[in-house]
Formats: sequence, structure tokens, C-alpha cells
Amino acid sequence: MSRESERIKEGDKILLFWDQRRQWLLNVEKERQFHTHKGVVKLSDVVGKRYGETILSSLGLVFLILRPTTYDFLGHVARPTQIMYPKDIGLVLLKLGLSSGKIVIEAGTGSGAMTLAMASAIKPEGHVYSYEIRPSFLESARRGLRRAGLDEYVTLVQRDAKEGFEQREVDAALIDLGEPWAVIPHAWEALRGGSPIGSFSPTTNQVERTVVSMRGKFANIQSLECFLREIRAEEGKTRPATVMTGHTGYLTFANKIYPSEQERGSSVAEHA
Amino acid sequence: MSRESERIKEGDKILLFWDQRRQWLLNVEKERQFHTHKGVVKLSDVVGKRYGETILSSLGLVFLILRPTTYDFLGHVARPTQIMYPKDIGLVLLKLGLSSGKIVIEAGTGSGAMTLAMASAIKPEGHVYSYEIRPSFLESARRGLRRAGLDEYVTLVQRDAKEGFEQREVDAALIDLGEPWAVIPHAWEALRGGSPIGSFSPTTNQVERTVVSMRGKFANIQSLECFLREIRAEEGKTRPATVMTGHTGYLTFANKIYPSEQERGSSVAEHA
Amino acid sequence: MSRESERIKEGDKILLFWDQRRQWLLNVEKERQFHTHKGVVKLSDVVGKRYGETILSSLGLVFLILRPTTYDFLGHVARPTQIMYPKDIGLVLLKLGLSSGKIVIEAGTGSGAMTLAMASAIKPEGHVYSYEIRPSFLESARRGLRRAGLDEYVTLVQRDAKEGFEQREVDAALIDLGEPWAVIPHAWEALRGGSPIGSFSPTTNQVERTVVSMRGKFANIQSLECFLREIRAEEGKTRPATVMTGHTGYLTFANKIYPSEQERGSSVAEHA
Amino acid sequence: MSRESERIKEGDKILLFWDQRRQWLLNVEKERQFHTHKGVVKLSDVVGKRYGETILSSLGLVFLILRPTTYDFLGHVARPTQIMYPKDIGLVLLKLGLSSGKIVIEAGTGSGAMTLAMASAIKPEGHVYSYEIRPSFLESARRGLRRAGLDEYVTLVQRDAKEGFEQREVDAALIDLGEPWAVIPHAWEALRGGSPIGSFSPTTNQVERTVVSMRGKFANIQSLECFLREIRAEEGKTRPATVMTGHTGYLTFANKIYPSEQERGSSVAEHA
Repeated sequence: MSRESERIKEGDKILLFWDQRRQWLLNVEKERQFHTHKGVVKLSDVVGKRYGETILSSLGLVFLILRPTTYDFLGHVARPTQIMYPKDIGLVLLKLGLSSGKIVIEAGTGSGAMTLAMASAIKPEGHVYSYEIRPSFLESARRGLRRAGLDEYVTLVQRDAKEGFEQREVDAALIDLGEPWAVIPHAWEALRGGSPIGSFSPTTNQVERTVVSMRGKFANIQSLECFLREIRAEEGKTRPATVMTGHTGYLTFANKIYPSEQERGSSVAEHA
Repeated sequence: MSRESERIKEGDKILLFWDQRRQWLLNVEKERQFHTHKGVVKLSDVVGKRYGETILSSLGLVFLILRPTTYDFLGHVARPTQIMYPKDIGLVLLKLGLSSGKIVIEAGTGSGAMTLAMASAIKPEGHVYSYEIRPSFLESARRGLRRAGLDEYVTLVQRDAKEGFEQREVDAALIDLGEPWAVIPHAWEALRGGSPIGSFSPTTNQVERTVVSMRGKFANIQSLECFLREIRAEEGKTRPATVMTGHTGYLTFANKIYPSEQERGSSVAEHA
Repeated sequence: MSRESERIKEGDKILLFWDQRRQWLLNVEKERQFHTHKGVVKLSDVVGKRYGETILSSLGLVFLILRPTTYDFLGHVARPTQIMYPKDIGLVLLKLGLSSGKIVIEAGTGSGAMTLAMASAIKPEGHVYSYEIRPSFLESARRGLRRAGLDEYVTLVQRDAKEGFEQREVDAALIDLGEPWAVIPHAWEALRGGSPIGSFSPTTNQVERTVVSMRGKFANIQSLECFLREIRAEEGKTRPATVMTGHTGYLTFANKIYPSEQERGSSVAEHA
Repeated sequence: MSRESERIKEGDKILLFWDQRRQWLLNVEKERQFHTHKGVVKLSDVVGKRYGETILSSLGLVFLILRPTTYDFLGHVARPTQIMYPKDIGLVLLKLGLSSGKIVIEAGTGSGAMTLAMASAIKPEGHVYSYEIRPSFLESARRGLRRAGLDEYVTLVQRDAKEGFEQREVDAALIDLGEPWAVIPHAWEALRGGSPIGSFSPTTNQVERTVVSMRGKFANIQSLECFLREIRAEEGKTRPATVMTGHTGYLTFANKIYPSEQERGSSVAEHA
């Protein structure tokens, strides 16, 4: 990757930015015109500019050309189902210890947002195996991964994770579907000893049943809830934003253990 | 990396686990004995075990042998200064779009926790340049990186970031020191156009001044506060934990822009 | 007040309830017809019913007839300005120690919601003196108080509280306007020694300046932020609500002190 | 009540204040000496002072003499059991519409903190009937009420609320014990139609079962969680406190309804 201040050329991706709620991930195609509420942007005008520069719409309004990152691709996946937000995704990547080279399995591809984030984290030497039964979700996830240039790091498997995973000795597992407890024994089979699992669930009932079903086969079990609030910083009148997301879901993390025969039933329970 | 269920050997690293507050990152050395409040653990006993298995202390109590990830290394850095918590770190990695191959600069190595997390995210093809003036902090960070096997991905620079960065066209910048506004113009010089910057500050006054100092040279400015709460899940009596961390700091993110001459002073301000 | 299960008669007040967002405080007038999105409700049909019973609209839909409390009157004041929410109001009543017999001054009547809540708390033997310069706000507050039957416990004063209060030796003071520091010295004059003051402000800058201006004349200074989140409890799928209010304002409380000459400048500062 | 700046005399109550964690509610008795970590305070020295003035301990350190309110009495009850915090108490007083003249029943006196707050709210014309089976709790609550001068507004009943209340046509009911669903039908019997009930529970399981058991007999059912965070305001370095209480309990509120025969089973369910 060159470190010169390169100019945008055809085929590059840009984030056309108006404000935090109105921004678009676009492929630069010379013939393309992009219609916004603030006028038409000709993508041929973008060619030759630097990322960070501005561009005028047909109405003379100034748009910004930003450089898209994985984060921006996350925000532009389709959202057909229960969703994990960036606040949750960042924590999952960290708690699962994901980095280049790691092999990770995912139960429930869903929108593909978490799949995409994990692919970005484990590339170029790792791999994600993501299981999903609904073909339309797989198709949507596949498109999102291809657009982000991450499809080579992911194998999408059309199969119910409740029937088990094909992989063994994986570094981490993530469960993002409605009945985690039905997948947890399979994830145990697939995981390397001592390695982390994560599970995302919207209700407290799911969290409770997930944690109970982990006991004995997993330790270091911890359930977390993450809140994110925006701060409106302005000179002399800094204050939090009035509206915030009150809930997305709970995250439960744990590590696979092998309880030995003589010790089982005694003090292992204490380590939960 | 082999996918067989390998046995622990001398020189491997383990997370010796009692509970969530009492766990230790250890090198497996045959002669070593590790003293805990629950008895002595002989590390020679660990050799030949699998991660996830248990080990008895001299008092006959059961410890777990877990497999350490980047996350565990984060929790075991020295904490001599203002600290970012995992909840903050995960969000930073995501918002800065860090993945293998990215070049990132950091102002304020501090405890080295964020440096370590960024190194793990950008390896094997990227690099972190972290600036810090206090030698003791650099030394402590160097030890933490070496222990985590991440030192080759980081250049620690003993220099005040307020005097500027040597790098140019970097993919991302993170500021984690008391006067972000003194570093922001230098970070602008170092960043590629359209690319992300992040800044961590404990006080609202710092957030305000940081945001104000970004205006005009950065867009998509957003300040966030992240809360994390533990949920105690138990059958029939699930409830949040009584104590939580009320505050670590605020995160401010933005993207470098080049405001063009004729447009400056007009509507770019709207894009903040 | 009779303790029999009385029947609703003309002149009574009811809370006509559809759901938590659609409910109306109404006077029962025999000739009146009330138009809703679910059909017309004839108020003559309400007469003779008991509170808690149902009533059918012209479309055959079932509305509930609830008994309005002070809380419901709060929710139906006009909201022309910065507002305190019930979560904040409850805390203010408690921290200011308001109960029957207390004399309290308020700087900034605003919507009159806080005035109404304080009047309800100090009746029948106490009194609220509320200062406001904008006639339209006073008029609106007056209507709200009259509707709630609380106007006899409140004196609305059309005057800028920054010019001072007429009252002396009051039990508590509440400041709910943009520049609390301009009113704090006057509130000090009006308060009894050792008694509580409260101040509500949306920005961190206001909180900071408020606290700084209290030093030396007030002690036990404490600023608080209160969050309220709704829980959606349903069998087997209990979870917090997706949307919550992220911010209304900060509350600062303190007690009036008389620092003695010889002690000033020494350790009184510690008691802040 | 006189509005002159009265002098403290024997028999008065004071709040002896060092800082927010070290403050004591004391009766002024001439012979009494009060021992603190900062020296001995002679209560005879307090006589003749004004509230808000300072007093020197035997070590020459300055204590403040503040005027206690209901809020201070709350903070000084014994805490033998699950406790509601001021943030919860303020909301309960408001949502139950408590003010002078209201008749309220309480299931579970517990520490007596909520009883005390309700007594303060409904005095002088209302009354609280509080049910508790454990004699030691009743005794402790009785002492707290007497000390606050509120005992005449409360009848403490040594009886399990699960066996029913003696009162009828009460204005409000509060349940603060482990199995609210066992008391809810009795509370329904005791309440006036359309009037409010509140229930406090630490676990999500309790909230769920409480809400389910209310359906059909109550409407306007709402469960809430209240967080309180302290803000450390200082010139140029304002920030939230590091530690906060993550959880006390959930509050559920509703209103008693009489579902009519022909309408039952149809749309009343929608009004939940």
C-alpha cells in the first residue's frame, strides 16, 4: 500500500458525507450520478480529488469525500434482524481476542454486520465460518462482504448451527441467534480448550438460560450490557444528546473448560 | 498454526484463573512455583495439560488454565495513568477502522494498553508509532508488548507528540493525553485525507476544547461516552451488578478534511 | 374526603386513558364530546361510573377512566421551555425536604411543572413563591395550577429572580433558569441557615459555574444526573426499551452556610 | 412556624456535617459529647448558634451544623434489607401521587425508609398503613419515624401483607417485598378504582412475574429503572464520578381497573 497522497480513481470507494445521518458508501463510476436531497453529485467530479476534499452538488452545496473504513461498511449493511451495534461489536472483537490468524465460528449470520467486523479483524491469515439457515440473509451478507473486500476471509454456511459445526479447534465462537443454549454444546465441541465464546441476546430470559446452560462446560462466565451516549460538545454549552439507544442486547462471554472427573461437582462451580 | 488439540509446553503462556478478579498471566517455566492466596501452583504440573483443564494447588484447590488472548494482556498492563477500559478500546479499534495493514500513530503511550490493542489489530502487515515523553512509561509499555508478542508491530518514540509526528499519510491517529488540542494540528499533518482520528479525555472541558479545535480541519466530529454494566444471571434471580464504573472518559472521533479555498467559511461548518 | 367507592359526577376530573402515550386529563361536563383517533367519547356516559371502569367510544373501542394524580397533571402542562422530567422532579422534592408547611422559592416558573409538583408537596400548610419574567409562562403556569386545584398554595411573581427575592427565612430554594449563578446570592439571602437549595441545568458548563459560585456560601454541594429507562416486561421476553431519554439536565444541591470570620479560608473549603 | 432566624436550642435536631460520607443526625443535649474521627464535638457549644454556622471540634477542626430534612432522616435509617434509594423513593412519591391527605398502604416496612418518606409526603392529613411480619424491622422503623417526628402519621401493622389488608378505598399502594404477586390481589381489594400501585423488586424475574400478575386487574403498567450518577464539577475539570451504583431495583407502576363483563377479553389487554 502506497503512502503517497493518492488521488481518487475509478473503482475506488468513497463515503459521500453530508452529516452523521446522511452519508453514503459509493463506488466511483464515471458515468454515475448520485441523487441526494441536496442535489445531484456527479461521480466523475470525484475522480482526481483527494479523500478529505469537498465536492459540489448540482445545487451548489458542499459534500465531503471521506475514506471508508470497516466501521462505515458496518453501518451500511442491510438490517433485517436483531442487530448488534458498534458498541457491542467492538467489545466482542476484543473479548474474543480476534486478530489476524484466528479461526472463528459464528452461529447466525443475520445482517452480516458482525461477520464483516470479525472478517476485518482476523484477516489476512484467519478465517470466519458463519452459519445461517435463511438464504436471503446469506445473500445479503455475501453482498456486504464483497463490497467491503472481505469475502475471501469468510465461508458462509447455509445450515442451522443447532445441528453442529464442522470445524474443530477454533479460536473463538460467537452466537447471535434466538436460542443460544441450543448451540452452546456444539460450540463447545468446536472450540479449543480455554478459548472464548460470546453470545448476544436481547432479553434477560435468554441471558439467564444462556448462562445456566454454560455452567460446567465453560468458566469465567460474564454477562455485560453496554450503553453508548453521544455528547454534544459546543463552546460554553456542552451536554449529552437528548435521545439515546436504551437497549440493543446483552453480551455473555465465557471460556471453554474440561472439568476433570475427580474435580467435577466440587469447586469448579466456584469459578463461574 | 496447528489446529490439533495441543498440549501446553514450557515457554507457553497461560491464564491461571481463580475468578474474575483473581487471574494471572504466567509463562510456563518448569522450575517456577506460583504463590496465591489459595495455595502454591507448580508450573511443572501445567506442562502436558490442555488449555481449559484444571490444576490443583498445594491446598488441593482447583484452578483453571485458560488460553490468554489480547484481551487478557490488556488487563495485565501496569496502570500508572489515566486508563481506557476495554469498553472504550473496542470502540476505538472499530471507529478507527484498524485491521491488518493499517498504519496508526498514537500520542501518549501511557500504560501501553491501547498500544497493545492497536498492535494486535493491525498485525501482521500494519504498524503502530506511539509517542511518549516519560521513559518509565515507555519501558513499561515495551515490557507489556514483548510479553504479548506484539513488539515487532510497534515503534515506541520517546518524544512529546506536541512537537509533531514524523510519519505522513497514516491511516489513523489516536490521542490519549491531557491536552489533545496541542496535538490535533500535528495529527492532521500526519493523517491521510478523509481518515479517522480519535481522542480520549476524562473531563467535559477537554471534550469541548478538543471538538472546538477540530472544527474546520476535521468533519464528522462525534463525542461519545460508553457505559458498561455487568449482569448477574442466575436462575430465577437475574439482576444487574450493584456496583459499576460510572466514568472512565469520553471518546471523540472525526475525519480529516481539506476545506477548499472558495468553500471555506460557508457550509463546511454544517458538516461538523 | 370520603372513603366510599364514589361515583363520578359532573365537575370531576378524569384521566381518559388509551395507552401510555395517549391519555387526556378532562373535566366531566355533560354536554361535552371528546374526539380521539379511536372515536368520540361522550362525557355524559362517564357520569355515574367508578374510576377504573371502562367506557366505549363511538367506534366501540374501550377507553379506561383513571383517577388523575399530581403526576398526571405534571404530564399535561404546556412545555414551552427547558423541562424537568418526573425523574428529576421526584429527586428535587426529596432532596429539598419538601412537605406540608415548607416555604419554598423558585427562580424560573417556566412550564410550571416543578411549581405544580412543589405545591402538591407543601400543601396545605406551606407555600411556593415562584418568580418568572415572561407573562405568557406565568399565565400558562397559572392555568395548570388552577386545573390541578393547587393555585392557592402558590404565589406567582412576575419579576426577574436575578433582582432578588422578597422572602426571607425560606425552607428551600429551587433555581431553574439559564444563569443560576446570577440568582444564587439572592437565594442565599432568602434561605434559612443550613437549608437546601437545588438548581437544574442542561449543560456541564452551567453545572461547573453553578458549583463554583456556590463555594464559600454553601456546603454539601453535590451534582447529580438521573437516567430513567423503561423495562418491557413480558413472559419469557423481558428486556429494556429500545429508546430512552439520554439527557434532560443536571441537578445541583447544596446547603446554605454562614462561614465564620476566623475559620474562613481554612478548612471550610474541605466540606464542599 | 416562625420565620425568624432562630437560634438552636436544646432538643433541636442537627445534621453535624463533615463531608458527604461523614455526617450525623443528632439531638442537641447539653451534656452530650459526640466523638468523631476529627475530634470531640460538645453539643452544648451548638446551643445558641444558627443552622448553617460552624463549630470547632476538640482538635480545632471545623464541622458544619446543617438543618436536617426528611431526606437526611432517610439516609440514617437502619438498612437491614433490600433498600430503595432516594432516586427510587422520589419517583415513587411522584408516581403514587402522594400529598397531604392521601391514604396509602405499604407491604413490607423493611428498613422503614420508604415508610418515612411516604409519611412526610402525606402529612398532616393523610396516613400510611405499613405491614411487616418481622418484629425487629417494625421496631427499627418505629424508632426512625419517631426520631423524624412522623410516627403519628403511620400505623405499623405486624402482619403478613400476603394475608390481606384491612383498609379499603385507599389512594395508593406500595409493595416492597420479595413476592409482589402474592400481595397484588390484596392491594387491588384495598385500592380505590383507577388509583396507583407501585412495586419495587431487584430482579428481572420478579418484574416479569409482577407485571404478568397485574394484567387484567391493572392498566397503565410500566416498569422503570432509575440510575443516578454523581458529577464532580470543578473549574476546568468537570467529570462524572468514577464509581456509581449500578443497580438497586426496578419499579413497576400501574392503576387499578374494573374490567366490565362484556368487554373483558377483548381490547382491555391493549391498554396494558
